[in-house]
Amino acid sequence: MHLVYLVASVFQTPAASAPGMNDGRVYLWIAIAVALVALALAALLARAVIAADSGTAEMQAISNAIREGAEAFLKRQYQTIGAIALVLAVLLFVGYHLSPRTAPFAGKTVISFLVGAVCSGLAGFTGMYCSIRANIRAASAARTSLDRALRLALRGGAVTGLVVVALSLLGVSALFLLFGGLDHPQAVPFQLVGFGFGASLVALFAQLGGGIYTKAADVGADLVGKVEAGIPEDDPRNPAVIADLVGDNVGDCAGRGADIFESTAAENVGAMILGAALYPVFGLKGILFPLIVLAINLIASIIGVFVVSTNETEDPMRALNRGFYVTSLLALAGFGAAVYGMLSGPGVAPLWLFGCGVVGLVTAFLFVWITQYYTEAKYRPVMSIVKASLTGPATNIISGLAVGMETPAMPVVVISAALLLSYYFGVQGLAGVDSVSNFAKGIYGTAIATMGMLSCAAYILAMDTFGPITDNAGGIIEMSEHEGVVRDRTDKLDSAGNTTKALTKGYAIGSASLAAFLLFSAYLEEIKTLVVAKLDVAHAAGLATSMPVNWSFNNINLAQIPVFVGALLGAMLTYLFSSLAIKAVGRTAQMVVEDVRNQFRENPGIMLGTSKPNYARCVNIVTSAALKEMVVPGLLAVGLPVAVGFIFKHFSQSYQANASLDSAGAALVPMISGQAVNLAGAEAVAGLLMVGTISGVLLAMLMNNGGGAWDNAKKYIETGQYGGKKSDAHKAAVVGDTVGDPFKDTAGPSLHVLIKLLATITLVLAPLFV
Amino acid sequence: MHLVYLVASVFQTPAASAPGMNDGRVYLWIAIAVALVALALAALLARAVIAADSGTAEMQAISNAIREGAEAFLKRQYQTIGAIALVLAVLLFVGYHLSPRTAPFAGKTVISFLVGAVCSGLAGFTGMYCSIRANIRAASAARTSLDRALRLALRGGAVTGLVVVALSLLGVSALFLLFGGLDHPQAVPFQLVGFGFGASLVALFAQLGGGIYTKAADVGADLVGKVEAGIPEDDPRNPAVIADLVGDNVGDCAGRGADIFESTAAENVGAMILGAALYPVFGLKGILFPLIVLAINLIASIIGVFVVSTNETEDPMRALNRGFYVTSLLALAGFGAAVYGMLSGPGVAPLWLFGCGVVGLVTAFLFVWITQYYTEAKYRPVMSIVKASLTGPATNIISGLAVGMETPAMPVVVISAALLLSYYFGVQGLAGVDSVSNFAKGIYGTAIATMGMLSCAAYILAMDTFGPITDNAGGIIEMSEHEGVVRDRTDKLDSAGNTTKALTKGYAIGSASLAAFLLFSAYLEEIKTLVVAKLDVAHAAGLATSMPVNWSFNNINLAQIPVFVGALLGAMLTYLFSSLAIKAVGRTAQMVVEDVRNQFRENPGIMLGTSKPNYARCVNIVTSAALKEMVVPGLLAVGLPVAVGFIFKHFSQSYQANASLDSAGAALVPMISGQAVNLAGAEAVAGLLMVGTISGVLLAMLMNNGGGAWDNAKKYIETGQYGGKKSDAHKAAVVGDTVGDPFKDTAGPSLHVLIKLLATITLVLAPLFV
Repeated sequence: MHLVYLVASVFQTPAASAPGMNDGRVYLWIAIAVALVALALAALLARAVIAADSGTAEMQAISNAIREGAEAFLKRQYQTIGAIALVLAVLLFVGYHLSPRTAPFAGKTVISFLVGAVCSGLAGFTGMYCSIRANIRAASAARTSLDRALRLALRGGAVTGLVVVALSLLGVSALFLLFGGLDHPQAVPFQLVGFGFGASLVALFAQLGGGIYTKAADVGADLVGKVEAGIPEDDPRNPAVIADLVGDNVGDCAGRGADIFESTAAENVGAMILGAALYPVFGLKGILFPLIVLAINLIASIIGVFVVSTNETEDPMRALNRGFYVTSLLALAGFGAAVYGMLSGPGVAPLWLFGCGVVGLVTAFLFVWITQYYTEAKYRPVMSIVKASLTGPATNIISGLAVGMETPAMPVVVISAALLLSYYFGVQGLAGVDSVSNFAKGIYGTAIATMGMLSCAAYILAMDTFGPITDNAGGIIEMSEHEGVVRDRTDKLDSAGNTTKALTKGYAIGSASLAAFLLFSAYLEEIKTLVVAKLDVAHAAGLATSMPVNWSFNNINLAQIPVFVGALLGAMLTYLFSSLAIKAVGRTAQMVVEDVRNQFRENPGIMLGTSKPNYARCVNIVTSAALKEMVVPGLLAVGLPVAVGFIFKHFSQSYQANASLDSAGAALVPMISGQAVNLAGAEAVAGLLMVGTISGVLLAMLMNNGGGAWDNAKKYIETGQYGGKKSDAHKAAVVGDTVGDPFKDTAGPSLHVLIKLLATITLVLAPLFV
Repeated sequence: MHLVYLVASVFQTPAASAPGMNDGRVYLWIAIAVALVALALAALLARAVIAADSGTAEMQAISNAIREGAEAFLKRQYQTIGAIALVLAVLLFVGYHLSPRTAPFAGKTVISFLVGAVCSGLAGFTGMYCSIRANIRAASAARTSLDRALRLALRGGAVTGLVVVALSLLGVSALFLLFGGLDHPQAVPFQLVGFGFGASLVALFAQLGGGIYTKAADVGADLVGKVEAGIPEDDPRNPAVIADLVGDNVGDCAGRGADIFESTAAENVGAMILGAALYPVFGLKGILFPLIVLAINLIASIIGVFVVSTNETEDPMRALNRGFYVTSLLALAGFGAAVYGMLSGPGVAPLWLFGCGVVGLVTAFLFVWITQYYTEAKYRPVMSIVKASLTGPATNIISGLAVGMETPAMPVVVISAALLLSYYFGVQGLAGVDSVSNFAKGIYGTAIATMGMLSCAAYILAMDTFGPITDNAGGIIEMSEHEGVVRDRTDKLDSAGNTTKALTKGYAIGSASLAAFLLFSAYLEEIKTLVVAKLDVAHAAGLATSMPVNWSFNNINLAQIPVFVGALLGAMLTYLFSSLAIKAVGRTAQMVVEDVRNQFRENPGIMLGTSKPNYARCVNIVTSAALKEMVVPGLLAVGLPVAVGFIFKHFSQSYQANASLDSAGAALVPMISGQAVNLAGAEAVAGLLMVGTISGVLLAMLMNNGGGAWDNAKKYIETGQYGGKKSDAHKAAVVGDTVGDPFKDTAGPSLHVLIKLLATITLVLAPLFV
């Protein structure tokens, strides 16, 4: 606690020097400065990584092939996404011009949308640029020292982490400044929703395309290589092997980067909107608070990354965890200082608000722990799959699905407790403030918890990107036929990388579910603002309007048919979207299988090892197919909420509750010319958003954890237990692992992104639903 | 339409003879009379079936073994359920006595609970009593004529259908009469909610226990028989073969009977509660309308069953469908007549209300059609699984899961359309009535649609029970080693039975999702009544109370934390419950496998065919295990809503929205002594109920249709396509079929029951949440 007060005094200095409601502008400059410094540091880090030794010529040949494949995919992917984004930008512009009320905001919304999309793309690109170069350096370093290899891989990953978080911070801060946020702090946050939507859109397609690519290549390579040709994984004779390694980068690395970028962007904008609702209490500082939390996140993560080192005998996971603990502690201290420095005022009890942040961080820890429980072989769930493998693939699958369906239970209890506690803390923390409703206080508490949970995102992302880097490093070492201690080192790193990948998935879904509530609330806040504006316009035009006292749009009534139908459709969307994603993997994998079969037939020298397979042809095929396949599920995700909003806006007057009257005969809903303002469209969309989120979170947990459990059950058998490799139990476990692949690496992570896309698209299109 | 008017004139006669608000008492007597006549007819039908020839001594030996096993299971199962029900009855009695407001209703609630439970048990028992006797008669008849076998099997099934619907009708009508419904028609429907809960409780355990039994025996018998010992299905040397055949009866037959009993009971009571809300419009007739619809259902179904006959060459499915069409047409005509006769009055446009019923029937047809599309081999989905089987079990499973996840899409659109249309028709149909809100009008429209959908339930149930009867008949013929034309006949019947089983599952889930909205609304209505009573009591005690004008409890606001948390927990419950059910099957199947292995080892004569296996030992083992395994998921389903209601009632004052004031300074929520009545418990439970229902419906569709598709993909390959039996594709398809078994026959159907249990338990316990 001492540390907190110490740092708090630093924060309080600038605030004290500029009194009045708008004190705290300096925080915006601090945020921008920290973001720029972090970007510079990321550049230095990248240079240091790239300057490291890049191994033998043979290793470089493999690494170059991966790099070319990944860059080619990313280039074509961004072209496709860019085209879609431009079309959407035009539609957005036209849509906002449909009504004179929204027309003035069309330009700003489209600009922030495009900036968000470009920043997200840039973050994904630079992150991958560095990690596909770090993989070979880590492999080369592994020839001499585990510590050096570990640090190289983590720093390579840190570039992604820093760039993602810093660009998100910079983008939001710069737009806030540009749009005049310092002069109109309450209005501008609403104009930033386009940023979140742009980020989400890119993230959705990046994760979908990458996810389809990586698993199609993986499943295809395995089916035709391991099963048909009987050659081991990562064997250089397999024409799909490079495509498989490329997949690790474009799926896990670029995809997850876009995912976390979207999380921080959406959470940022959402929290600023809620901060605007609390403007009477905290002034500008409450709006800028989320930016400062991200800045703290960056500083803590940088220190955390530099703390990590290991020796030849230690489990690399322990070293990575040390860095995580350091980051978390620093983030917590900084968070506390920021709360005390920025969220204070008459009637405010900052300790309670700091408590919200602690709830968020604890939630993050619990999610990571639960994910471990369900996906590591030392606990009951994975062992139940291992045992079921003894009676064949059917029982393996049944018990894997049973494990998957069990997984949401604990996280749901944790999230429920986190929501209840942080809401309660929020109400208590602002108990002395009279100008704000309990609801707004509590919701702000959940927003602080979300920021707490995301306050070590950059380090988590560095750990996550560590995964594909070490995976690739292992592949390069294997393909260039190194043996002995070098292989042991990369195996150790690879195994740590697998763990971090699983854990960050748990973290991502946890933050998505906590952030969801914040984003719902931002949506409700925005609709309220829009209705008030609509009434003002009508009033100015001479129409009779009436606005009930204390009215706010916080009523998403499931007992109303439009809301219930929206809810049904939202839940259905998550199933259909998953189905499309999984089928896309199946179809694309089939094309890989056919190409590999063709290559083996056309060139028998491949299997003899006398001639090289045509890696690039296979890479090209997967690239085209994955990009084609990502379009339909992506457009479904974008189109359904829009369709629901429009249909219910225009055809639903009969489904409105009667505009009942209060004891004085005044209407209880906003009215224009004696007609209740039709909110059925906005309500149906909210139902879709909320229940779609619940269903998506649960389904994603099922798929992520089920997939992870299958994977580790197979790996456990491969250690020689229950018959070991090539036993019947192993064959059964391989079936489970293959089923789990599109679950955990395509559909599951795409659902994370979908959830946030639903939130941001409803925020952006809210003006069209009222 | 002429038919409608003709029958309507019959209906109108009694109403015309007794004017005033309470005219229509005669309908209660009509309902009771029809129920008694249907029961008498069912008894005659049962006698006629039992009087038929029961085949050779060998066939009788097998049939007796099945009968003994089934009856032994049912006896022990009802003992366990009875013990649980008695404990719950005591708890219910004590719980209602916790508050002086609810104490007066304790007796009636417990009585109706016990009557519901006993009726449900009785319906299950008599239905199964007849079908385990019909199986051998159908088998025997198949030795001479397909037509006779078909009619015997359908009439055996019809006993179940009639007994289930008639007992449901009789139970509700008798309790209504007994509790003084003719004198207090608006109050008594609320006192019947115990009946629905009793029915649900028995149904939950019957379906869970039976579902676990049937699939554990099936999977266990297959794993050890087909896979390990290499003997065909239904081979008499397999010690688990009788357990498998017993399972068909206790799972499919008794379980589905309890399921439909619960549907009709819950829908009946829910519709009567909504009818009570419309008492000012329709009087007693609106409350009795659902009873008359069930009576029509019975009459139409009896005629439909007697219409069915076939010849040697026809597809039996066509004959069954003819009966279905006749039943539907008669039900529609009767429905129209009942609407015109009972739901008329000043300002009412009966044509619109009849339209609601048509919407319900069309929904039933569409659900059945969609189920066919997803589970029959002539359409894309099953064929995609067939093709995926060529590349092994992993791709078979992946594509089956993808199909399963796709299945909710169309049904959700259909249900959404049905809800919107019937709500709209309801509003239009009552447009001229001023005393009722649009919301109540629309909701009543959806209730009429639900009644329309359930108006051929008895015939559907007869078709469904036809499934296990013909399945068993086939088994008996196979085990008693008949060949040639007899086998062909039973195979044809068996195949038709498989189709009807799948279709009725689609029907059951469709009616459950439509009925859900009706039950939500009944719950809201009940909470409102309870709050009004609470204020009255407080007022009588001299406390200051205030009730806002036009207040009603129809606000389940997802944006409130308690509701959202309830929603999260409700969705989670459906996953955890499914996981527990699936794991129970796995564990029980393992015990079967071990017993069969032991029997083979202890007595080598079994495999040689020289000595008989100990069928009874295996039956005993499955019985004990299934009963043990059903307890935990069952209690979870009962306990979670209760826990949520209690916790939020007692610890949630801080999560209440501020009691905001209207323009005259009056409170907008009911208040006692200046404190808002705490409705957080009731709201959280509603969130759990609604989102739990949505999630349960979707998950059940995934599992039912996915399972059905896997099953038929395997059967398609067995016809000789894509390699035929014993090919690798077939092996892969067998894996998929085995995975689908606990999905479609244990977890999926149990979810149907769970959904309705959630609705009835919240109705019964509502007084404890306010």
